[in-house]
Amino acid sequence: MTHTAELIAVGTELLLGNICNTDAQMISQALSSLGINVYYHTVVGDNPERARAAVEVAKGRADIIITTGGLGPTCDDLTKQVLAEAFGKKLAFHEESAQRIRDYFKRRLPHRQMTENNLQQAMLPEGCTVLQNDWGTAPGCAFEADGVRVIMLPGPPRECRAMIEHRVIPYLRSLADGVIASRTLKLFGIGESAMEAQLREQMLSMHNPTLAPYAKEGECELRITAKAPTEEEARAMLDPVEQRLREQFGDLIYGTDVKSLEERISQLLREQKLTLSTAESCTGGLAAKRMTDLPGASQIFKGGVVCYTNEVKHSVLGVPQETLDGYGAVSAETAKALALGACRVLRSDLAVSVTGVAGPDPDDRGNPVGLVYVGLAHGNQVWVKETRLGLARDRIRNSAVLTAFDMVRRHLTGLTVV
Amino acid sequence: MTHTAELIAVGTELLLGNICNTDAQMISQALSSLGINVYYHTVVGDNPERARAAVEVAKGRADIIITTGGLGPTCDDLTKQVLAEAFGKKLAFHEESAQRIRDYFKRRLPHRQMTENNLQQAMLPEGCTVLQNDWGTAPGCAFEADGVRVIMLPGPPRECRAMIEHRVIPYLRSLADGVIASRTLKLFGIGESAMEAQLREQMLSMHNPTLAPYAKEGECELRITAKAPTEEEARAMLDPVEQRLREQFGDLIYGTDVKSLEERISQLLREQKLTLSTAESCTGGLAAKRMTDLPGASQIFKGGVVCYTNEVKHSVLGVPQETLDGYGAVSAETAKALALGACRVLRSDLAVSVTGVAGPDPDDRGNPVGLVYVGLAHGNQVWVKETRLGLARDRIRNSAVLTAFDMVRRHLTGLTVV
Repeated sequence: MTHTAELIAVGTELLLGNICNTDAQMISQALSSLGINVYYHTVVGDNPERARAAVEVAKGRADIIITTGGLGPTCDDLTKQVLAEAFGKKLAFHEESAQRIRDYFKRRLPHRQMTENNLQQAMLPEGCTVLQNDWGTAPGCAFEADGVRVIMLPGPPRECRAMIEHRVIPYLRSLADGVIASRTLKLFGIGESAMEAQLREQMLSMHNPTLAPYAKEGECELRITAKAPTEEEARAMLDPVEQRLREQFGDLIYGTDVKSLEERISQLLREQKLTLSTAESCTGGLAAKRMTDLPGASQIFKGGVVCYTNEVKHSVLGVPQETLDGYGAVSAETAKALALGACRVLRSDLAVSVTGVAGPDPDDRGNPVGLVYVGLAHGNQVWVKETRLGLARDRIRNSAVLTAFDMVRRHLTGLTVV
Repeated sequence: MTHTAELIAVGTELLLGNICNTDAQMISQALSSLGINVYYHTVVGDNPERARAAVEVAKGRADIIITTGGLGPTCDDLTKQVLAEAFGKKLAFHEESAQRIRDYFKRRLPHRQMTENNLQQAMLPEGCTVLQNDWGTAPGCAFEADGVRVIMLPGPPRECRAMIEHRVIPYLRSLADGVIASRTLKLFGIGESAMEAQLREQMLSMHNPTLAPYAKEGECELRITAKAPTEEEARAMLDPVEQRLREQFGDLIYGTDVKSLEERISQLLREQKLTLSTAESCTGGLAAKRMTDLPGASQIFKGGVVCYTNEVKHSVLGVPQETLDGYGAVSAETAKALALGACRVLRSDLAVSVTGVAGPDPDDRGNPVGLVYVGLAHGNQVWVKETRLGLARDRIRNSAVLTAFDMVRRHLTGLTVV
């Protein structure tokens, strides 16, 4: 049976535009991976009457309703009240959840007094399945009534994301007829539209497995999804598609089921027992930040220098004054000297460097916004890549960091670096 | 008269979670600034029947309907067809728009052949106001029928943003009765629930001006909004509320109408002609990255060292080996030495340092996850703050950086630093 889901987000902050409904995107992705159709998203404010109206509309057209937000004490637990009422349920005190809330406050916020209204969060529809929230105070819950499955989740995106992954997907997987397997190939160095243009016909002719392209922040991914009676059969269906895509995109594919380029190079550095450091001018610490987003980074990442001025490039990383004067800070020569300097000063095996013009204005020497030199050093070897990376500050910085990481990836997998 | 708006986004890519509905956020912000209430957002796929159903629901509860997406040739101009039908309008060919589309292709995409279906975009509801799109091919439009104002906008966020600013806001401004003024106070050092608890009664009794609290990533804000016949009157209404909030929250308020704590300290550093640098262990470059998110940072930010290992703390920043051996890397003493070292090595007036345990596991010495020491040096003066910052890696790192920035803010405004 094919299921139809509707998402209802409750929160005035969404209607005021203070935040974007990223929860809906996360849940949609999860449902899509389970083969469950989503036909509508609705956003409503912290207003019981309008929330009720939204639920009534959803009841008439969906057999799975997933709500986000409106579970905390500040909104008087609006969502639970409205949903319980709409499906003829009473709210009952759930002692285990109450105890978790008390513990949460004691452990995480020892200096803060728990107010009694926090325990309201332990009031849940009677007979529901409690979806334990290990990432915040408000538990989620699920119940079935009038032929509809209702799932309520906390609104804060960090909590919602964890709840989807660890609670909702396992709960809903039982609804899917057959087993879904998917595999994600990650690409760097090709634009979304170029990738889509190459795949358009293939995608249209594929039904099981399906192929879906995504693009985010300079990277692309291709998700292959197959449905079959058993896990093994579903997995086996993915292989020929992956094979074909690998022939098509070659070394633009940097990994399979890996989260990011930095995760991929961390794997490679670990396997090859090598360490990395960074020397960053225009990216201002973003490369280091991304490397240390990963827990356990200290094994492979020594550190970095953010050298936002020529003075620091010279005094801390030993870029010769003649290089800075002769070629300028934004030059291939400076990028090389920065990478070699970082290896030496931070005592790492490899180092990447970034120097460029992130904007909004061209630099003193008239170098245009978006011109970035990215360096890679390994011992005495050094490579440099000149890139033109668009015009928006954020995107320039992001693309520069990805370019640096991809140079590391190419070097450590025996490909041509530049 | 108070207007009530509903936003309808048309696009299967939203329901699949490929993209987030950022258009809705942008439009909501714009409407909120005009004092127009938004009661619902709806998202529907490229499906005429379900789009029709969404429009019917919206007609019954809003007097302004704004749609995004579904205007291009790839979706058969779904939105225009459905809206025209719902309001009994015919689509008519608009020659001026057609000419703009032909020109657009010639100018921007000279290498691409314009296909005839692109001209479908020039079919618009008869008698509508055309909202000229200078940022893409599909024109927007607006009309009034059955007591409802309908506005249709292109979906791509870049186009939508420009259309809102240059077409929709001027168009809707005439509907607003009176002028809206708002002011946002930014706070650091207080939790959302504590802030709300202090304000709950005030907020309930306020209607004009209104007061709305928001929290995001460790910071809180309070937005005061007033409506009056003139700009001056509206602004004057904000003052007493701000005054009262300043008495209530004192130096937890770090700024008014300022984007972030880093923007605030950038202002202060600029005014006082001082420079900053960073020495980061567990935050791995996040503080430097945030400082350099701001264009023009090079005037006040010298650079930073990401010292992820003890070796780098010692060799690059000169933390004495005895300090590292005796007190450990996660200690007040190391935080102080890091801040003083950064000032010296990076030749800045001030420096902040962060050293702590971001997790997921306690460190070698058994220091718990979330324990972070934040240092601030100014010349020979040095302060250090010990903090416990929850358990999630992202949040620990984010809170640590904000704590560091807030110490700078407090120091530069003559408050007690710790």
